[in-house]
Amino acid sequence: MTGIGVGVIGTGFMGKAHALGWRNARAVLGGNLPDVRMEMLCEMPMAKAEQLAGQFGFARATDDWRALVNDPDVDVVSITTPNNLHREMALEALKAGKHVWCEKPMALTLADAEEMEAAARAAGVVTMLGYNYIRNPAYQHARRMIEDGRIGRVVHVRGWVDEDYQADPDLPWTWRAKLADAGLGTLGDLGCHLVSMIVGLAGPVESLVADMQVVHESRPLADGSGRSPVENEDTATALIRFANGAHGSISTSRSAWGRKNRLDWEIHGTKGMICFAQERMNELQVYLNEGPRGEQGFRTILTGPDHPPFGAFVPAPGHQIGFNDLKVIEAAELLTAIRDGAQAYPSMTDALGFEKVIHAIAESARSGSVRVTL
Amino acid sequence: MTGIGVGVIGTGFMGKAHALGWRNARAVLGGNLPDVRMEMLCEMPMAKAEQLAGQFGFARATDDWRALVNDPDVDVVSITTPNNLHREMALEALKAGKHVWCEKPMALTLADAEEMEAAARAAGVVTMLGYNYIRNPAYQHARRMIEDGRIGRVVHVRGWVDEDYQADPDLPWTWRAKLADAGLGTLGDLGCHLVSMIVGLAGPVESLVADMQVVHESRPLADGSGRSPVENEDTATALIRFANGAHGSISTSRSAWGRKNRLDWEIHGTKGMICFAQERMNELQVYLNEGPRGEQGFRTILTGPDHPPFGAFVPAPGHQIGFNDLKVIEAAELLTAIRDGAQAYPSMTDALGFEKVIHAIAESARSGSVRVTL
Amino acid sequence: MTGIGVGVIGTGFMGKAHALGWRNARAVLGGNLPDVRMEMLCEMPMAKAEQLAGQFGFARATDDWRALVNDPDVDVVSITTPNNLHREMALEALKAGKHVWCEKPMALTLADAEEMEAAARAAGVVTMLGYNYIRNPAYQHARRMIEDGRIGRVVHVRGWVDEDYQADPDLPWTWRAKLADAGLGTLGDLGCHLVSMIVGLAGPVESLVADMQVVHESRPLADGSGRSPVENEDTATALIRFANGAHGSISTSRSAWGRKNRLDWEIHGTKGMICFAQERMNELQVYLNEGPRGEQGFRTILTGPDHPPFGAFVPAPGHQIGFNDLKVIEAAELLTAIRDGAQAYPSMTDALGFEKVIHAIAESARSGSVRVTL
Amino acid sequence: MTGIGVGVIGTGFMGKAHALGWRNARAVLGGNLPDVRMEMLCEMPMAKAEQLAGQFGFARATDDWRALVNDPDVDVVSITTPNNLHREMALEALKAGKHVWCEKPMALTLADAEEMEAAARAAGVVTMLGYNYIRNPAYQHARRMIEDGRIGRVVHVRGWVDEDYQADPDLPWTWRAKLADAGLGTLGDLGCHLVSMIVGLAGPVESLVADMQVVHESRPLADGSGRSPVENEDTATALIRFANGAHGSISTSRSAWGRKNRLDWEIHGTKGMICFAQERMNELQVYLNEGPRGEQGFRTILTGPDHPPFGAFVPAPGHQIGFNDLKVIEAAELLTAIRDGAQAYPSMTDALGFEKVIHAIAESARSGSVRVTL
Repeated sequence: MTGIGVGVIGTGFMGKAHALGWRNARAVLGGNLPDVRMEMLCEMPMAKAEQLAGQFGFARATDDWRALVNDPDVDVVSITTPNNLHREMALEALKAGKHVWCEKPMALTLADAEEMEAAARAAGVVTMLGYNYIRNPAYQHARRMIEDGRIGRVVHVRGWVDEDYQADPDLPWTWRAKLADAGLGTLGDLGCHLVSMIVGLAGPVESLVADMQVVHESRPLADGSGRSPVENEDTATALIRFANGAHGSISTSRSAWGRKNRLDWEIHGTKGMICFAQERMNELQVYLNEGPRGEQGFRTILTGPDHPPFGAFVPAPGHQIGFNDLKVIEAAELLTAIRDGAQAYPSMTDALGFEKVIHAIAESARSGSVRVTL
Repeated sequence: MTGIGVGVIGTGFMGKAHALGWRNARAVLGGNLPDVRMEMLCEMPMAKAEQLAGQFGFARATDDWRALVNDPDVDVVSITTPNNLHREMALEALKAGKHVWCEKPMALTLADAEEMEAAARAAGVVTMLGYNYIRNPAYQHARRMIEDGRIGRVVHVRGWVDEDYQADPDLPWTWRAKLADAGLGTLGDLGCHLVSMIVGLAGPVESLVADMQVVHESRPLADGSGRSPVENEDTATALIRFANGAHGSISTSRSAWGRKNRLDWEIHGTKGMICFAQERMNELQVYLNEGPRGEQGFRTILTGPDHPPFGAFVPAPGHQIGFNDLKVIEAAELLTAIRDGAQAYPSMTDALGFEKVIHAIAESARSGSVRVTL
Repeated sequence: MTGIGVGVIGTGFMGKAHALGWRNARAVLGGNLPDVRMEMLCEMPMAKAEQLAGQFGFARATDDWRALVNDPDVDVVSITTPNNLHREMALEALKAGKHVWCEKPMALTLADAEEMEAAARAAGVVTMLGYNYIRNPAYQHARRMIEDGRIGRVVHVRGWVDEDYQADPDLPWTWRAKLADAGLGTLGDLGCHLVSMIVGLAGPVESLVADMQVVHESRPLADGSGRSPVENEDTATALIRFANGAHGSISTSRSAWGRKNRLDWEIHGTKGMICFAQERMNELQVYLNEGPRGEQGFRTILTGPDHPPFGAFVPAPGHQIGFNDLKVIEAAELLTAIRDGAQAYPSMTDALGFEKVIHAIAESARSGSVRVTL
Repeated sequence: MTGIGVGVIGTGFMGKAHALGWRNARAVLGGNLPDVRMEMLCEMPMAKAEQLAGQFGFARATDDWRALVNDPDVDVVSITTPNNLHREMALEALKAGKHVWCEKPMALTLADAEEMEAAARAAGVVTMLGYNYIRNPAYQHARRMIEDGRIGRVVHVRGWVDEDYQADPDLPWTWRAKLADAGLGTLGDLGCHLVSMIVGLAGPVESLVADMQVVHESRPLADGSGRSPVENEDTATALIRFANGAHGSISTSRSAWGRKNRLDWEIHGTKGMICFAQERMNELQVYLNEGPRGEQGFRTILTGPDHPPFGAFVPAPGHQIGFNDLKVIEAAELLTAIRDGAQAYPSMTDALGFEKVIHAIAESARSGSVRVTL
């Protein structure tokens, strides 16, 4: 068996994105990446698994995820199921010695995530969490600009991540509203993505103070039999102090009408500012205190081949990459780590750091905004 | 003597803006407003007072503000001097029975502001604080839309007000950095404007938790003799709970490169969202959960005659009003109140409410982010 | 009599704008400008003239424009009436030796405009046409950048000026649709403004080829008695060759839904590009082929004190001037010329050049797009 | 042999895009599409062909395009080589009875394109030209809105397509500047894309008048031996009359600094307007004359699952598709046509219509802007 055998559990939004990521990493990003064998896809029922395995190009289908994670020809497992299944699947895959690409958040509780991270370290395999937004060439360019000192010392940070999938008061109640099934609300769905971006730009969080809110206290049951409470947060906001001395704040809402993927941030430096808006993911807004004052302004940088690995997708600037392309870059990161026997970023250890932040936000908010030190 | 006699103290940014506001209120906004007599302008030295009185159209000049506030032909006094002078001038003007239009913030400390407010109530005159941004037809339209329920119940609020006049680390130290001369930093300069807008849209603040930061800990003395500490905040951020149950956050920085007047906010409702950006002050961004989902989007409303009193300035939509026009509307508010023997908005009593919020932010931040209830 | 005595004919959109311009030029732009005496306002009926004279601050009112232009205390006459009256009023004012500030377009026909221009030259007074958009500090900054070679040689030019006041097919027929009363349609209302901006940036037009279109061929009569034809153009577009070798195109529509004042242009140079959008009149978009390629982008320059005379209105950048402020700058231009015995820009001679362009567009379009050389 | 055997000639920008399109069409867009066999890739030299065949997932490599087009296991041929090779390759592929997916423009001259189109009709195979931008869900949504009458009758149209790859005067001379090798300049590279979009929205072009320009008359030879003339146009602009009575204009430049892929258009209707900007390809700007006038504005519609087939890529709105995704949709169009024995859009016959427009523009321009009827 040559190449790296891939098994994907789940075929929803993220399952398909992983399948496409695996399928295209080497085709897009180059011949130095190992070959990928699309080995097995897991879905239920079996008929659906078979149909989608055919569509996505997997050699085999299964409706038994344990079979997949224990299959000898599967080297790496993508876990893209609902959050409450991540822990069990990841532990089993790690026990079987498989590399693991797990969607975020890691688990429903911090304790579960810690258990997973310990198991990953013990297993000595390569792990990676699905923080795709940090793969964006625009984001990586911002990181390099900051590292190169283009905006000076980072002194203040702000971020927001909003969607509107829970904005409508009349939407029926689902498992998403239940702590035991969903864990955190908007913090787990959206907030951790923002944390992954911010921490990469401004460094680790030292402490925070937070508040959160249930916007719609109950929702109608789909069967018309009454209403059920919403147990987890619709919005959350935190005041943050970073280890490097910068201050800042982040805020998230899943009930923000009109926001489809508002994952935006701004990094204030002593020489300039960089801003980003995910809904215009091929752009950076950069202000530099350079040149004649009357000619200064925020410039809209359109990403292109000057912002690797954009050029591997399209050799012309301003021609746009998309969401699924981020997963292609992500898959390549994991393939490279497996090839090199190195760690991928963010490993379960790195990602546990992000999740600690969102759980600290929840903890501070529940306690009435007491400061939590990380 | 017919008409209302006006005296203006100060000829800087705000002094000129008041002069132009007085000069144009009736010309622009209509014949029902009382006549304004441009009676006296105060500046130092006298030569400058005389030159600018001529330029701005005042009948007389003085370099003695006490003479102005006690002049029998002056009915209303504009106080546009640095913040540390507001208290004394306002008290004297109130004592003389004059109506007072005072620039924000009221004073260096909350105690001083409270003293002024008590004096104003005792004097029984009309007072108004210079919160010009709430005069914007775009803002008033947002208010009406919210009052009319167009975005449903207000559930979340965010706001930012940033400039970059203290962003450069090499700027020399000035009195602005000294607590005893300037009082609050960015909260007093910028933050209170944001509070005036937010409170008008979401109602009073119930409690908050805040943090603040000195970005540049010291600055070089202009004479090259060393460095002096920056004593007040460069940034401040607060988590806010509103009396109506909404949550939110506001943040301000005077060290935000590229921001020239970023006084922006977004109001999240259960049926839609309204956003505003002061640097594009003739626009509103509105999202309504109405019509076919595939046709929904944030719409850019250009203000025009459908948004009074825009049409009094320009009868054509999209033709833009400017900063000074806001002061014209503000002057008209005060003239109307004087004419009708009514209170202007925001009176010293109203404005004290705004200032309590910024002082509560400072108090919470100084205490290490303990919740402050208003 | 000291100062310059002003008489304004008309009190509509432009009449009020002239009144405010006269009223504020010296107050805003400085003591070196001559004093303005607000001498006389002309409107019909007399009661309205008197009411608005009081409101705008004129000493006297009249309902007889001939009385105004011949009044010995009136030195300069603002003509802000409908276009079909400009010629007669301007000729009479020139005959009386008055300086003239006339709204654009000069007249219904090119022949009339030429007659006015000849009379102006013969009279030896100061004349100026109301091309206010070129007064914008943003525009003047663009001009300077081009003159300073910041974008290299100008090679291509595009411009658009659109509104939607004639977009609705159900609007009743008015005199605007009648050649004999209105002359040109969108070219006269809007197109000439664009020409004034473009010519100032790229130099004179050498030749052009054009097309135009009546979008709504007839409109209902307001009294319900039937429909009447629209005789002048709703849209017009021209391919232009400039004397300096650049090519370009301009297009105008009065039937463009959603455009409230889309007076936009872009100047392509060999080193960069400058773009402007009137609906965001306090911004310039500038791209310069400078610095690292990966950091290049269109920058949004917010106008401020670095872009004179912005600072005379507001000393803080990003705080916005408005439409009426452009008329204040325009009035100052005329006052300066009168004071110095110089010509104002654009004089009737300069403005005739703009009007020749729009008439050439109409001529080319009527002839089936034959090239017209200017 | 099951499935459709694919051969791709060329591995540059478009070669890779075709390979990715073929590779992903069924995986993304569903199991109803036929299976694709990645049969053969042609490149020179052979080593490069083999390396990229491995990377892109082709079974075989060749350096002989004739071998590819005549291979019995190849059913459909992608032609992605420089424009001057399209004709010969397409004719040979058609002769061999292969379906053909050819990049635009079809050929260097209209005569060549006509020869290709005749051969395609004679061959009775499926052909398609690479007009990928019309595959955008945003574009298709605009088309549907227009067809559904949402903006009323289309009355005016404007479009621009600009890049800056020939903006720098110091770039060395290449074959792109030579008529015999490149044919048209910016019209062939960029202009035809715009035509494909406009015609799909406003219908066929009836006649036009045009002008064009060489911005940089010569360029330095790369070997330093002197300069060579630029023989084809850097910019071109046309006044257009559509068969349905609408007027409009289109303009293109390959020398427009800062424009990376400015393929923008606006469609003016009697009830609204739709605008699009390719650099923000996941957005539409739509203005509808509906609802309260004070709430009207251009709305920014972010594409999502309500705009098929967006949801096949990402089930969440606002999460962005990219350039390569357009090629995936394009490949699916061709696969569907082959499966159904139907014609793909745009076939060589359809695309010849687009090319006639750009050649008519060149013809009118060369003749001094004489009207050309199509």
